[in-house]
Amino acid sequence: MKLVCEGIDLSDAVLKVVKACATKTVTPVLECIKLSARNDSLIVLATDGEISIQKTIKADIYEEGDVCVPGRYFSDFIKKLEGVQLTLSTDEKRMTIVYADSQTEMQVLSAADFPVIDTDINENSFRLKTADLKKFINATSFCCASDDSRPILKGCQFVIRNNELCATSLDGFRLATIHGELISATGDMEIVCPVRTLSEIEKMIDGDGETEIFVQKGRILVEVDDTVLTSRLYNGDFIKKENIIPKEFTTKVKVDKAALKASIERAAILVRNDKNSLIIFDVTADKIEISSNSEIGSVQEPVKAQVEGKDVKIAMNSKFIIEAVNALTEDKLVLAFNSQIQPFICENEEAKDRLYLILPVRTMNNA
Amino acid sequence: MKLVCEGIDLSDAVLKVVKACATKTVTPVLECIKLSARNDSLIVLATDGEISIQKTIKADIYEEGDVCVPGRYFSDFIKKLEGVQLTLSTDEKRMTIVYADSQTEMQVLSAADFPVIDTDINENSFRLKTADLKKFINATSFCCASDDSRPILKGCQFVIRNNELCATSLDGFRLATIHGELISATGDMEIVCPVRTLSEIEKMIDGDGETEIFVQKGRILVEVDDTVLTSRLYNGDFIKKENIIPKEFTTKVKVDKAALKASIERAAILVRNDKNSLIIFDVTADKIEISSNSEIGSVQEPVKAQVEGKDVKIAMNSKFIIEAVNALTEDKLVLAFNSQIQPFICENEEAKDRLYLILPVRTMNNA
Repeated sequence: MKLVCEGIDLSDAVLKVVKACATKTVTPVLECIKLSARNDSLIVLATDGEISIQKTIKADIYEEGDVCVPGRYFSDFIKKLEGVQLTLSTDEKRMTIVYADSQTEMQVLSAADFPVIDTDINENSFRLKTADLKKFINATSFCCASDDSRPILKGCQFVIRNNELCATSLDGFRLATIHGELISATGDMEIVCPVRTLSEIEKMIDGDGETEIFVQKGRILVEVDDTVLTSRLYNGDFIKKENIIPKEFTTKVKVDKAALKASIERAAILVRNDKNSLIIFDVTADKIEISSNSEIGSVQEPVKAQVEGKDVKIAMNSKFIIEAVNALTEDKLVLAFNSQIQPFICENEEAKDRLYLILPVRTMNNA
Repeated sequence: MKLVCEGIDLSDAVLKVVKACATKTVTPVLECIKLSARNDSLIVLATDGEISIQKTIKADIYEEGDVCVPGRYFSDFIKKLEGVQLTLSTDEKRMTIVYADSQTEMQVLSAADFPVIDTDINENSFRLKTADLKKFINATSFCCASDDSRPILKGCQFVIRNNELCATSLDGFRLATIHGELISATGDMEIVCPVRTLSEIEKMIDGDGETEIFVQKGRILVEVDDTVLTSRLYNGDFIKKENIIPKEFTTKVKVDKAALKASIERAAILVRNDKNSLIIFDVTADKIEISSNSEIGSVQEPVKAQVEGKDVKIAMNSKFIIEAVNALTEDKLVLAFNSQIQPFICENEEAKDRLYLILPVRTMNNA
């Protein structure tokens, strides 16, 4: 392989794809970036086995070929050569990078060991506003599971029906769901996409335009400005949210978001080092009494609210309620409860596009 | 103790003093903030035993008294009550904070166990431009030792002679020194101030004005807008820089700072996970050849330079040379060497107010 390219182009490409490099792996080639010189292009590619990112740049190719370079060293090094023209050439064991009067050599691995990435993904697709895709991802991804006990919960479910998308995630303690219109879809579909993939997609996309997501054979593909991201999807049955979200509630509370948030945050401080970071909502006639209690001290704050239905006293993880409240967008929120041991929900007062459900924590008092 | 104060005043005070709270200690009271209600003021104080920060705010005192509250919990909690008026009252075991309709209780410790902080420090003093004090601190503090093997090296030496200040720090591998004019001083003096104290002072001071530093009985005191910082100083003999900095050099090199920095940073990337992060300078007729070598690969970069004197090849820790180059302020730098085993220096070409000295690393080739 031998080629000449601009440092600024190669730097831009390696900084985009290096995000797909594996970090801690027993397969060193997954920590590499693969460079492929073909015709008048250099293809820059990285994958950790789940997600892949590829970008093609212009280059003068004197000898075609493929090679794998150590991903993070290479990207950090090339980042510092944005202003110059680079000549890359390889023999079996190393790549030589020549720039100005200088010369760097890097150990390489054989491209034969690098996974083959299938980018022929186009059977099904859906298209939506880029801002909407960001909104769907941001509204749900924080509720995905972070541990491996049920791997499918590390993904977010996208259900497409009649040109509408419903995104749902849950971690066993809480659930987030949001729905909205698509611009178009080739048909109904149901996928579970790894949250890490969604987070990389969220960073790739930008602006007022539209984004199309392609789906085929358990994989997805998104392309933005010559950068192609692919990822495997998760297989298996995702929890049906209809079976979890109550349809009726015995208590409905309308409350000012800012006041609720401030009180919860203060109550959370004193329990932040406790297991479950427990705070209690005591809902009565015209208020929520928010309280917490730890060896540091105790907080008791009434927050004015419009309450319909039965009184209820319920304990929860303060982190979950803070994140749900932060993800809601209106000044007034609605909370709805059934009992101290049943899941409760938080929604905007008006726009019902998204809903957060939280399981209460059983305490000595209500277990 | 019972008092009423504004949340915004108390929040400002606790956020300033909490920086002096101890973090990991076997003495819980050092993790506290001490509140003292006297006359029409509330004195807010924290100390880790070495450094103390104190701020006095206005308050309506209904009952004088002293109490210790858990520092970080209290400051994070009060931070979220900036907009309201607070009533603080204590009994033996707890403090009650009342605001609007809400009430919080916090466990307290007896103020009797809190160290007595001597703020009667005024025997000697020196005064300088605030910007100069920031410059002195920033130019030297990164070269202080971070381990405890020779505790005095965790401080920075300030020597005052004839209205001039010379600040010096060293960690056993490198030395930084800077000197400049004072506005005034009560006399000559020599102190070694903990680098952590200097870093807190650097954050406290700001603006175009002047700062006065008071010294007495092995302690210093700085006051900025009702915030009073005191700190113990280190005792013991500090290394005499005159004994370490060579007076003559066999090789002098004048080099462009930007070019030198870019080459060193690239060479450092390939050795960043190696012990000593070793890079080599090979100084010959009209250039420095910068190189590095690791199992990842090797870099070789010539940097044009004006060289006077003998050729020299010298190995060094790339982190030390990068930090020294970054701390120099002119476009052209001067490096001066004697041999591959003797310390070398880096300075600005013109302004000789500061100097960095670095010990080379002995390698198999030159040991």
